Parts: sequence; structure tokens; C-alpha cells
Amino acid sequence: MIREADPARLQEVLDGRWAHIRQAVRERLGAEFVTVPGETGDQARERISRLIRELPTDVGVASAFPVEYGGSGDPGGSAVAAEMLAQVDLSLMVKAGVQWGLFGGAVVALGTAKHHEAYLRDIISADLMGCFAMTETGHGSDVQQLRTTCTYDPESGTFDLHTPHQAARKDYIGNAAKDGRMAVVFAQLITGGRRYGVHAWLVPIRDDQGNPMPGVTLGDAGAKAGLLGVDNGRISFDHVTVPREMLLDRYGQVAPDGTYTSSIENDTRRFFTMLGTLVRGRVTVGASASAATRSALTIAVRYGDIRRQFTRPGDDREVVLNDYLAHQRKLLPALATTYAYAFAQEELVATLAEVQGTDAEVDEHRQRELESRAAGLKAVQTWHATRTIQMCREACGGAGYLAENRLPGLKADTDVFTTFEGDNTVLLQLVAKGLLTGYRDAFGSLDGWGRATFVAEQVREMVLERTAARSLIQRLVSAAPGRDEEVAVTDRGWHLTVFEDREKHLLEGAIRRLRKGAATKKDHPFEIFNDVQDHILKTAAAHIDRITLEAFVAGIDRTTDPDARALLSRVCDLYALSVIEADKGWLMEHGRLTPARSKAVTAVVNDLLRELRPHMRTLVDAFAIPDTWLNAAILREEDDRQEATAKEDEAVRSLPVG
Amino acid sequence: MIREADPARLQEVLDGRWAHIRQAVRERLGAEFVTVPGETGDQARERISRLIRELPTDVGVASAFPVEYGGSGDPGGSAVAAEMLAQVDLSLMVKAGVQWGLFGGAVVALGTAKHHEAYLRDIISADLMGCFAMTETGHGSDVQQLRTTCTYDPESGTFDLHTPHQAARKDYIGNAAKDGRMAVVFAQLITGGRRYGVHAWLVPIRDDQGNPMPGVTLGDAGAKAGLLGVDNGRISFDHVTVPREMLLDRYGQVAPDGTYTSSIENDTRRFFTMLGTLVRGRVTVGASASAATRSALTIAVRYGDIRRQFTRPGDDREVVLNDYLAHQRKLLPALATTYAYAFAQEELVATLAEVQGTDAEVDEHRQRELESRAAGLKAVQTWHATRTIQMCREACGGAGYLAENRLPGLKADTDVFTTFEGDNTVLLQLVAKGLLTGYRDAFGSLDGWGRATFVAEQVREMVLERTAARSLIQRLVSAAPGRDEEVAVTDRGWHLTVFEDREKHLLEGAIRRLRKGAATKKDHPFEIFNDVQDHILKTAAAHIDRITLEAFVAGIDRTTDPDARALLSRVCDLYALSVIEADKGWLMEHGRLTPARSKAVTAVVNDLLRELRPHMRTLVDAFAIPDTWLNAAILREEDDRQEATAKEDEAVRSLPVG
Repeated sequence: MIREADPARLQEVLDGRWAHIRQAVRERLGAEFVTVPGETGDQARERISRLIRELPTDVGVASAFPVEYGGSGDPGGSAVAAEMLAQVDLSLMVKAGVQWGLFGGAVVALGTAKHHEAYLRDIISADLMGCFAMTETGHGSDVQQLRTTCTYDPESGTFDLHTPHQAARKDYIGNAAKDGRMAVVFAQLITGGRRYGVHAWLVPIRDDQGNPMPGVTLGDAGAKAGLLGVDNGRISFDHVTVPREMLLDRYGQVAPDGTYTSSIENDTRRFFTMLGTLVRGRVTVGASASAATRSALTIAVRYGDIRRQFTRPGDDREVVLNDYLAHQRKLLPALATTYAYAFAQEELVATLAEVQGTDAEVDEHRQRELESRAAGLKAVQTWHATRTIQMCREACGGAGYLAENRLPGLKADTDVFTTFEGDNTVLLQLVAKGLLTGYRDAFGSLDGWGRATFVAEQVREMVLERTAARSLIQRLVSAAPGRDEEVAVTDRGWHLTVFEDREKHLLEGAIRRLRKGAATKKDHPFEIFNDVQDHILKTAAAHIDRITLEAFVAGIDRTTDPDARALLSRVCDLYALSVIEADKGWLMEHGRLTPARSKAVTAVVNDLLRELRPHMRTLVDAFAIPDTWLNAAILREEDDRQEATAKEDEAVRSLPVG
Repeated sequence: MIREADPARLQEVLDGRWAHIRQAVRERLGAEFVTVPGETGDQARERISRLIRELPTDVGVASAFPVEYGGSGDPGGSAVAAEMLAQVDLSLMVKAGVQWGLFGGAVVALGTAKHHEAYLRDIISADLMGCFAMTETGHGSDVQQLRTTCTYDPESGTFDLHTPHQAARKDYIGNAAKDGRMAVVFAQLITGGRRYGVHAWLVPIRDDQGNPMPGVTLGDAGAKAGLLGVDNGRISFDHVTVPREMLLDRYGQVAPDGTYTSSIENDTRRFFTMLGTLVRGRVTVGASASAATRSALTIAVRYGDIRRQFTRPGDDREVVLNDYLAHQRKLLPALATTYAYAFAQEELVATLAEVQGTDAEVDEHRQRELESRAAGLKAVQTWHATRTIQMCREACGGAGYLAENRLPGLKADTDVFTTFEGDNTVLLQLVAKGLLTGYRDAFGSLDGWGRATFVAEQVREMVLERTAARSLIQRLVSAAPGRDEEVAVTDRGWHLTVFEDREKHLLEGAIRRLRKGAATKKDHPFEIFNDVQDHILKTAAAHIDRITLEAFVAGIDRTTDPDARALLSRVCDLYALSVIEADKGWLMEHGRLTPARSKAVTAVVNDLLRELRPHMRTLVDAFAIPDTWLNAAILREEDDRQEATAKEDEAVRSLPVG
């Protein structure tokens, strides 16, 4: 039996390094900032436009900005603040993300002192609202292929920014429909008759009266599934003149005579370096998806603890939903996974803080790792949110369909996260590409990959780079008796070994298949890749599973309270075994699991559900979401109702039947 | 290679027996009936209230009503008409379903001649709008436990209808917030100091001016995730007087002196007989979910055929989304499953027509089978809709998030289907209960179940009752060499055997575990059931998978056009192998699949995706959804855009790089 744990002790672990920011947001953002279920699009836009200006800046939303302009140079804190905003209202988070993350972040990262000096103060105060105009109607995932052009003319000393056709118009752009005064516009830089790839310019799009600037056409993206408070729109440019100084020129400069210079020679590398500086958006979206997941789980778990349905044989009192195995099967593994991602996200934010928070030259390897993990954790957290919020909606029955109970809004608002800031499938491919590259770096070129399969230990060391708690995890793995059927299904070393083994085997298999493809389909490079696309995506997912489990293990290791630690350890068991159970087919196919042991995994998962049942409420209380923020009518009403009515029903129930 | 098939030939098979109704709806319902994306709740309600009265009745919406009142006594046709309405607008379908299915259907099924004579004509013409007031705030799934009371007083010769407390108020009731004038109200019948279980009364709730009747309190359920055009509301009764004649008294009568009579003595049996007559609601919801799924798949497949992203190495032209394996992995198995459900649904409607369409006494066994399959197919089709529409939304990227592209509306409108007309989990339990009962009927009481495992052939005959094409399926199964590894992975007999074997094994296992539980936990009947709840639900799902596959096989057998037949057969391969692949873990655990064969299944699924790729468009065109109904902006715009812009981009792309 697991002893009862104090939610406050769990909360400390979850709140982690940026607890002060989490606490500040909890204390400072009261009912006036909270989502209004069922409002119209116009009402939502009006409310969010107002609130974005009323947000207390000391809660951390602008903390990524340099100290000299009013920030605190703390990109980790700003990601955490955004995550907390997502728990208050997702439109507010996205609007803040557009203004301070994407727009402001691009000015900081891609601009130079002259831009910072001129604009950052107004950006931080929200006096200058802006857009991040990257995505075009025709190109969302493959932004290197953007069609907007910006051509330098040495005679006038200005650029000509132009939308050549409708597919090149900027689309889905936050702040574009209503509030944005300027935009960071991404376009193909052309000078001296040559093209240099995608760069960014700071361009006014509206005057002080809110009218479009000459040559700028602004449109409204119209009604959306959710995020009603965000004014997404479209922007087209008809040969708009942009002064030379408005090029955000940190990574590429154009001299008055049109000469192009850059410290990074290769166009593609330069572009991805520029993109890399904007990684915070993905870090934030993944975190926000998980914040919404935690809200949904809190509502569903608390409702499931008071809602009763169907009588127990021989008992007039009906059974609470959370007592049903099928209900536990829905809620608890999702809850365990949400805990796992919280620890993985905390580690990711720590890496972000390390890479972006110092003025020291960025270690390129570490930067690549940050980008890969941000991409992967964004993908898995947003998919997990979509699935889990849907499940919570169903777990609340018809009540879950009513706006007043928040779940429809949480679902609709987060839905777009799976495809924005990078389509999840494309992001997982990016993760896989990183793994393949890491493999190649360690073992030489494609031709040399043959011998790679023989150096399993080296792979373990070099490819499967360990997360934070390296030595602890190594110790646990070494202690586990490998694939031995004797080891307990709940042995942490066994979990770690299975996760690691699976990743390694998938990666090696992908490489083998790619090499075979390269040998037999030399002239069809697309087919070589496409034939193994599902395998590659699975490899990326297995990688993210592993770093997530390792982060969870490290998180438990940081937990000092013994009861909280014991409970977290069981939650981690459930997370690890849920992943193993979900992939038991692959594990049996590859001799990692015998049929008997696979059945044992399912039995142990069911045991864990029973064991964790009494702690469901503790686990969601540890998320520490204020009731004001949850704002779900069923939580306010249901409790009293069920208690009060039991007595009244007695009168009828005591009548003789028929 | 699969030869090109004519979508019209496929359409004939899909349209099936009620093709005339499908075609009539396609021809009669033009643009004025089509969903308006992005409208407000008030606008949607106003529009749907108007359209419900303008619906041409000759398209079949009222065809279930008796001929003498203006119907055509064709419940199958009415279910198909409702499904077609769902493809036009889901609010319109639900509103029609409330009016003619639930409200009108209850008057027909539970009332007697006096009620029919007085109300049916006005119900059919929509001059009398009504509600189906069953669900209460406190009881949705377990409606036998409803708390509203209706107590007979012989002195006044009237009933007293009363809501004893807030949890007993009628909730989520369609037509209650605005349009309903009367309601069929379900309540506990009390007379002579005894209670007789749940019965139904026809009760006026609004006067001609739309004001609530005395003692009736009406409320609005407020904003919902979707179905904005349906005015769901709440109804409470404060000792409302209801004349004795308003009891819908087909199954239970109260004489003036208060004496209760019924042809069905047992309260529970009577209640489930009454519920059983209302099975059409579930038949219709499952069908409507699939109609929405087909709309979503049509949009996503057509978009995926024109949308390009990322260039092919060595080729400037970008790759269309449907050429990516990962995209095919998302769309094609879902498409195959949608085909499978279309055939299963057609068979279900034929059973409905047989059971309800004649005046002949209903075969109780057949009625039970109808209820079980309606419940199961409702559950799987609505879950499939929720998953598939979500996937289609993601497959369309940011465009999928815009209301103008229909996917947000399809998702939000159908979302509630997984929990209304019976929560899916509860419905699958009902299916399982039917299977267990069938087993017991065949082999005697619980105590005698021990020997059941030894009579496998009898089980095959009696429990696994065959669907329509009994002899064909028996032939295919007999021809398959069983579990022999030599048989091709695409052998239909092997598929059928695997599906059947799995169902049988799961069912026997469930019985074994229940028996063991009964022996060891005698005093904990809830725990006995709860310990195996996940197993029971899986058994029910496996049963529905089998009847679905058998219906697909029967559908192919009905197809005369050779090209259509060949294509359908490959689609059926993909359906069967997708189910096997998704459950390969269980199949390996239970020795039904070797690891090598399991890997072969995945390889063959990938081969099938490549083979079916050129036929994706044909497969959705065969759904024959008019473009007016699809009404998705991306389908109108994208095609021209991509073609027109390829040339314009040339100018920039021909510039030398950097």
C-alpha cells in the first residue's frame, strides 16, 4: 500500500526551479484574467486585447528580454510564465507568445543593438504590438521555401518587399487581423541579382489609427476552432518599400551598395541558425499543452471522485466513477504520462536557460540537442494534450460537452498546437534526423555505418546521450539483470533498459534500411526515405520516451519527502509500463518481451491502477491549479448535489416495488 | 496493381438498399440547407429552427411513422435519411432526430391509438415541436435510476409530476431551451403507494406564446462545444398535474382507480422492452458519426492530393502530401475502416427494418441482437469519427483549424456522440453482457460453464452467430488453413479466422475469470465484475470487429462490377490487417501470431498503402458527397493556387544562390 502523500510536497517537486514564477502567477492573476466560457469571437478578442496590456509584467512574461530594456535575461523563467498563463487562458498565452515570444523574441535574437534600442521597451510594455509573419498560405512546415521576396535596390538604399502570388501571402498570423502595428516579416533576400535565402525585416503594417500602411493588405483568418481571443490574419505586400536598416541583420548584413555579408556562409546553415534562436516558441507550446492537460485532468479526476453511476449489487448507494477499472484505465495512465512530461519539460527549460541565458558563446552541440528535444517534447506533449483532454471530456459525459465546464474550450484552444510551431510529424522527423546525424558523427559517413552495429557499447555512450541524472541512471541500468525474465516488472533498471534498447534497435534498424535503400534505389532518394518514414517516426518517438523516463527518474531522485517520493515512484512505474504495454507488439516482435511477461505487464498495470486509485485526488491537487482558474461549474455544483439528494430519494426508494 | 474503378460503381454498393432515399436527399437539399461555418449560437439556432420546418418531408425524415398518419412505415429509410442529413448539417440531423426520432418515435412506440390520433400529424409536420425528457442531471447512463416521480391520485384522476431535487431535473434536453411545446417525460410511476419503475408521459411544457406552463421551469444548457443549432435545455417540474390519459400506456396502464396493469410483469424487463423500441436513436447516431467521418476524409484526402510540401531531392516541384507514407498511414486505414463500418451499418439498418418494419410479432432474440449491434456499432463508429476527424484536421495543418474548412465544426458537432444515446463504455458493456448471456443460454447456468471450453465447435455455431453472408463466410473460413504460417497474410479466410478466434478466446477467458472471481470473492460482486472490466470491454470490441469484417465480406460479395470488387477487396485487406496490426500484441501473447508473421503484417500494410495510394480519390468520390455540402474553402482555392504559382516562382528560383 502506498502511504498518503502531502500534495504540497509533490507540488514543490513539480514547481521546480522556477517555483517563484509559478507562485507569482498564481497569486497575481485573479478571476479577472480567467477564461470566459461561451463568449463570442468579438468578445474574446476584445477581452484578450485588453488583458494583454493589463498583465503585470513582474510575473515573468517579459523575463527573457535583456536586463537593460526591462527584462531579466531569464528565458527559462519566461517559458515557465507562458506555461502558467496557459493555465489561466490559452488565448492569453498565445497572444503573449506572439507579442513577447515570437515578435519580441525575433527582434532580440535576429536584430542588433539599433533595433533593440529603438523598439524593445515599447514591445515589453505592449505599446508596440507586433506580428511574427513567417508562415505563408503555401508554406507552413517547409519555411525555407517561403515565396515572399525582399529585393535590395542600392540606388534608393531600400528593400522592396513583395508578395508575388496568393500562396505567398502571410497566413494564420497572430495579431495581424486587429492589433499588430509592426511585423517581423520573413522573406527571400535578393541583392545584386543573387538570392541569399530567408531573412527577416521589421516592417510597419498599420499606422497609429490602425489603418493598413500603403501597399499592405490585411485580412482576417476568420472563425477558428478555438483561440477565439487571438486575432489571426493574413498579410500581403504590394512592393512595399522597407528601409535598409529594418533588416534584422545579426546573421546577415547588406551594405548600402548591396554587398551581402554573413558570418555563416552556407544559406541553409544560416537559416537554421536563425530558426534555432527562436526555439523558445516550441518549448512554450509543449509546456502550454501540458498545462491545459493538467487542467482537464484535474476537472475529470475531481468530477470522477464525486459523480456516481450504477448501484453496487446489494447496495443502494451508487459507485463513484473513479472506482471503475475502465475509468482508472482512462485517467491514470494519462495522469502518469502528464507527470512524466512535467519532469522532461523542466529539464528542457533548464537546457534552454543554459543555452540562451548566458552571454557565453553557445555550444553548437548543446544547441542542437536543445532544438531536437524542444521539437520532440512539443510533439508528444501536444498529442498527449489532444488525446487526454478528449478523454477527459468523455469521462465527464454530457457535462463535459458544456462550455461552462471548460473542457470544450481546453480542447478547441489546444487543438492547433499539434500543427503550429511546426507540424508534429515534421518535428519528429527533425528529431530522427538529429539522431541519424549523431550516429553518423560518431561512426563516420554513410559508407562506414556498416561496422556501427558491432559497437553497441559505443552507441550506448555516444548516441544515447544521457539526460540530467546520468550516473544515477547508469547505476540503475547496470543493476538490472538485462532481459532476464526473473527481474520484477516494476524494476526501474529494467524499464530504463527496455526504453534504451528499443531506441537503439530502432535507430540501427532505420540506418540498416536506409543503407539498403541507398544501395538498391540509388536514383530514387525520395523513395529511400519514404519507404522507412514510419520507422523513422517511431525511432524519434522512442527517443523522446527515453529522455522522458530518464527525466522522471531524475525528478524522483530530487524528491526528499519520503511519501511523495514513494508515490512518484509508483506513478513512474505506471508511466513506464503504460509505454511498454502500448508497444508490447513491437517488443515481442523483437524478442524484448515474452508473451508471458507481456501478460504480466498488463496485470501489473491493473494492480497499479488499484494501488494508485486512492491517490488520484492528491496527484491532481499537486498541480496546484487555483479553483478560480479551473472555473468549471460541475466542480462547484456536483459535490453538494449528490450528498443532499441521497436523503430525499429515500422517500421514493422506500416504497414497495410493483 | 489494382485497376482503376469507377466511383459510381462503388457508390452503388455503398448506397445500398436505400439508395433512393440517399439520392433524394442529395438532390433536394441544396445550398440553403448547408452548414454555415463560424456563425454564432443565436444565428445557428434561428437557422436550424427555420430549416427543420422547411425540410421536404418526402426525403424520408418521417418515413418511420405509420402510413395512416403520413409516414411510410419504413424505419430503415428514416435512419438512412437521418444519416444523410448529418452530411448536410449535424445540428439539423440532431434537431430532426429529437423531433421525429426521439419525441415522435416515443409517442409511436410507447403510446397507443389515442395518442397517435391526437398528435402524430402535428409532430410529422413539425407544427408540434417536442422534447425527449429522459436524462437527468444526476442520471444519464443508468436511466433506470431516474429520480423524477409521477404519482397517481385516484381522486382527481390525474398524475402529479415532480422534480424532487436538482439532480433530478431533466438536463441536456434537445428542443427544451426554445422550441419544444410538449415533452415525453420519463419518471418513476407511483400509484397506490407502490412504485412500478420508469414510464413516460406526454406533457405540455410551453403554451402557444412560448411561455413555460404553470409549474414548469425551463432553462438553457448554455454554450456547448458544438451542435450550436440545437437548443438543449433543462426542465424541472413543481408538482405539475398531468391527466391520466397522457401516460404513454402501451406497456403499462393505470386505471381510473389507480390499479396498475401491464403485459410485462417484471419492472426491469418492462423498462428494457420500452427502451428497446427506441433503438433507432442509436442506429442513427452511429450512422451520422460515420457520415461526418466521410465528409472529413473527403476533405483531407482531396486536400492531400493537391497540397504540396517539401521538395523531392533533385526536383524543384514539391511532393503532394498523399505521397508520403506517414500521410497514407494516417488517412488510408481510417478510410478502410470507414468503408467497413458503412457495410456493417447497412446490415444493421436492414435488421432494424426487419424487426420494426413489420406488424408481425417481434422475435425477441432478433430484437436483442439488434439492440446489441446498434449499441456496439454506435460506440465504434462514434469513436472512429472522433479520432478520424481529429486526424483529418491535423492532416490539413493550420487550414484544418479554420472554420471555413469545416473540420472544426465536424469535430465539435460529433464530439458529443461518444457519450450521448448511451455512453460508449456503457454500451460496449451492454454488448458484452449480451454475449455472456448468449453463452449462458447456449450452455446452461454459470455453474455449467465449465464444460463450455470443451465444445469449441458448438460455441462457434451458437455464440458467434453469423452475419448476413453466413455460408460465404463459412466457406472462406473452412478454406483457410487455420493458423498455418504458410497461408498468405492477405487470405480472407485467415482474417476471418483470426477475428473469430480472438472473439471466442476473449469471451471464454472472460467467463473463466468471472467464474474464478465468483468462487474466490463471493461477497464482493462489484469487485468480481470490476476486476475484469477491461477484458469485458475488449471482448465486446472484438465482437463488433468480427461482425464488421463479415459485413464487409458480404458487401464485396454483392458487388458485381469487377474493378469495384477488386478495389473493395484490397480495402478490406487493409481494414482486416489494420485491426490485426493494432492488436498484434494480444495476438502474439495468445499464440495467434508469431513475431515473424506480425512483422510481415506491418510490411504488407505498407505495401497496401502504396497499392491503394492511386485510388484514394476514387474511394472518397464514391461517398458521393455534393461539393455544396462539403463547402470547404481549401478545396475551392488550393487547386488553382498551386498550379498558378509554380510558374511565378520560377523567376526567383532561377536566380543564382548567394
